[in-house]
Amino acid sequence: MASQDNPDALVLSDDPLHPANLIPELCRNFYQLGWVTGTGGGISIRVGDKVYIAPSGVQKERILPVHIFVLPYPQAAPSPHTDRVFLRRPTLNLKESACTPLFWNAFDLRDAGSCIHTHSQHAVMATLLWPGETFTISHQEVCSHSVSAPEGVARALSYLDTLVVPIIENTPNEEDLKDSMAEAMKNYPDAAGILVRRHGVYVWGSDWEKAKTQAECLDYLFEIGVKMKLAGLETVLSS
Amino acid sequence: MASQDNPDALVLSDDPLHPANLIPELCRNFYQLGWVTGTGGGISIRVGDKVYIAPSGVQKERILPVHIFVLPYPQAAPSPHTDRVFLRRPTLNLKESACTPLFWNAFDLRDAGSCIHTHSQHAVMATLLWPGETFTISHQEVCSHSVSAPEGVARALSYLDTLVVPIIENTPNEEDLKDSMAEAMKNYPDAAGILVRRHGVYVWGSDWEKAKTQAECLDYLFEIGVKMKLAGLETVLSS
Amino acid sequence: MASQDNPDALVLSDDPLHPANLIPELCRNFYQLGWVTGTGGGISIRVGDKVYIAPSGVQKERILPVHIFVLPYPQAAPSPHTDRVFLRRPTLNLKESACTPLFWNAFDLRDAGSCIHTHSQHAVMATLLWPGETFTISHQEVCSHSVSAPEGVARALSYLDTLVVPIIENTPNEEDLKDSMAEAMKNYPDAAGILVRRHGVYVWGSDWEKAKTQAECLDYLFEIGVKMKLAGLETVLSS
Amino acid sequence: MASQDNPDALVLSDDPLHPANLIPELCRNFYQLGWVTGTGGGISIRVGDKVYIAPSGVQKERILPVHIFVLPYPQAAPSPHTDRVFLRRPTLNLKESACTPLFWNAFDLRDAGSCIHTHSQHAVMATLLWPGETFTISHQEVCSHSVSAPEGVARALSYLDTLVVPIIENTPNEEDLKDSMAEAMKNYPDAAGILVRRHGVYVWGSDWEKAKTQAECLDYLFEIGVKMKLAGLETVLSS
Repeated sequence: MASQDNPDALVLSDDPLHPANLIPELCRNFYQLGWVTGTGGGISIRVGDKVYIAPSGVQKERILPVHIFVLPYPQAAPSPHTDRVFLRRPTLNLKESACTPLFWNAFDLRDAGSCIHTHSQHAVMATLLWPGETFTISHQEVCSHSVSAPEGVARALSYLDTLVVPIIENTPNEEDLKDSMAEAMKNYPDAAGILVRRHGVYVWGSDWEKAKTQAECLDYLFEIGVKMKLAGLETVLSS
Repeated sequence: MASQDNPDALVLSDDPLHPANLIPELCRNFYQLGWVTGTGGGISIRVGDKVYIAPSGVQKERILPVHIFVLPYPQAAPSPHTDRVFLRRPTLNLKESACTPLFWNAFDLRDAGSCIHTHSQHAVMATLLWPGETFTISHQEVCSHSVSAPEGVARALSYLDTLVVPIIENTPNEEDLKDSMAEAMKNYPDAAGILVRRHGVYVWGSDWEKAKTQAECLDYLFEIGVKMKLAGLETVLSS
Repeated sequence: MASQDNPDALVLSDDPLHPANLIPELCRNFYQLGWVTGTGGGISIRVGDKVYIAPSGVQKERILPVHIFVLPYPQAAPSPHTDRVFLRRPTLNLKESACTPLFWNAFDLRDAGSCIHTHSQHAVMATLLWPGETFTISHQEVCSHSVSAPEGVARALSYLDTLVVPIIENTPNEEDLKDSMAEAMKNYPDAAGILVRRHGVYVWGSDWEKAKTQAECLDYLFEIGVKMKLAGLETVLSS
Repeated sequence: MASQDNPDALVLSDDPLHPANLIPELCRNFYQLGWVTGTGGGISIRVGDKVYIAPSGVQKERILPVHIFVLPYPQAAPSPHTDRVFLRRPTLNLKESACTPLFWNAFDLRDAGSCIHTHSQHAVMATLLWPGETFTISHQEVCSHSVSAPEGVARALSYLDTLVVPIIENTPNEEDLKDSMAEAMKNYPDAAGILVRRHGVYVWGSDWEKAKTQAECLDYLFEIGVKMKLAGLETVLSS
């Protein structure tokens, strides 16, 4: 198989929509949005039996296609306690994103084609001003551009619906979030994403376009929710 | 007629000011301004007997000329209950903007050459902090860069005038806003645009340049109006 | 004289630092900063006996060199009541910037080589939160990057100095600000710029680079001054 | 030696990662972030026995490689009272950054390969809302992307740790900060950077990439810390 002979062929393509080209471009986009400040956040894309993942601890707006990791899918959830299998690794001294087990949750539990993680301050402020188990907002037109469960039974929210995003507690090691994120995804089958307190948000979609638009919608709602809360306005109305 | 033989010729042009080139460029501009986050918002342009409209539910900053719909004008207001006539549709699986009937209001009732819809958070916050039927502000220099009624009798506002933007209530289906928007345009013949509560704003002009500058002026006024209100300042002075 | 034979030669140059190239580039820069939203604001540059001015009422981020007006300097202050003399006018149906008489104040009274006018919301908010005759701030490092009077006797401010920017009242016609702006410039010979209530700011410098850096420093100070005032912090300390 | 024969060779390179190319590019990046408004802020890079420094008092987003100063390292701390030695100076009438002695602190005391200085408003607001000797924040995921002491014993912070950034008082002459900055770096060996009250921040790293990501992480923490403080939230939790 060509890609086994030359694994680098997995990340070299003239197609701007190839995952190894899209991930660097989208990370530059996310940098402009303030989502991946420093070395935080990122995006993974799954196409069929391959998962494309950015490296950890690097400037996300300067990633190049040669920095991308490719993993086979499915494989037993690649946790810190599991040996991960790779189809291709960068030759540089890089480590795959620490979010890898969390991206896997979206692939395994929601059949997602892409998962985005941001450190957006709107997301973090939302987790601080909503001290309970969920962020909720209703009666915002942008809610109707989100989907409640982008899996087989994906259903678009109505303007009148209440968008619910579960909030899980942060842990010192990002990979340790895997179980609590999975539990929240099971407890909230309609969840549009998962907030992590004092950390950020994970959002997924059936492909990178749906993941990105969903991430932008949620970020918009976190931002306006925070503004409303600080202005003393209710964020959920009874219909 | 060439365009009937080859409808794609209607959206293929080397002229950067051709509507099918302008709409993608302006949507990228609006994305930078935070007006079309996710898949919301957009712009339509009417030149003579043709209306150019972007697709619905897609990332607005990534639209290409081949994605543009072209409709003949005039035609009976194309509501959800009416069969719309097209001169050209994209070959992709796309649907025309859900705002189409609302853009039509601007064309029919104001003889507009362009209509812009944004989900700007400044517009949405203005509708939340002005709970009544209108947003009002006076004594801002930028008011004098707006026009009160960009139709035949367009009149520039003075610095001393009060700018009035009617606010209509949102509905679960965007197309259902058509009648209440039309009613507000009739009740407020000088309206500079129409706000939609918890949703955004519609702004028009006799051409795309006037629509865009008007949309920027209004957005500026929503933003500073919200800042003033939150700082406890009056937004309308008696002259 | 070549330029009388072909006035367009006055605005056509391969040099990116030629005023007719700089003005469009700087206006795009100012658009990104939020200084020239809609059609407001702009910059004029004087080089020796020629003044380069942008048109009025157009999108400032889309100006081209061919849109630039060139006026001879000196000439009797070109007020609305005076016939202005031009070396070159665009062939399009454009009018020179309504700020022309105010730019002239900077040239005549401060020997400026450039004058910038912005509608920055930081400037406008400063005029609302400082209801008196001046905006004042001290003990900000950025003060020491401003100059108090960029004329013959220009003197850099110290970190310990209080920066003073006079505030004049706005008028319905921009050109009518000429006399009150001139009066403020005479009353405050050290003024770093002139704020116009509910309108914006005029800032000048001995060349375009000094005008731009001064405008950025003042805008920074308006922004942080407003933040401090809203947070209940004093903006002027006794040394 | 070639570079003595032709010092300009020290700043002319086709390699985009050469310090003389990186400094202009990064300064444009920092301008977009609002870190170097006007003429403030900048970055220096040390590679082996050479230090690359930008000029003082110029627009940082318009620096070119030919504007860069090159100094030999080590040399006796180049204070205002010391004759500085240069390997290369621009032919223009430029002066090296006034921050030079402060950059030297990072090289001498932390063996840094790069030092960044910003006038970020988030940093300045942090020094105003934390009136004591340090800015402190804990339980933010971004803390764990910072390092506490990027020298030989660099240690990544944990999410549970409290990030401490000493605040020193500003002085009218930037170079006079050298001693108090050095003292703070000695008193706080784990300091992630040094804030200067009403002025900005100095941040360093073992190379330009670590300095930049550290600067972004700290700026993020100043920004969210200020938001939390203004919203009445505690910024340090007991674990």
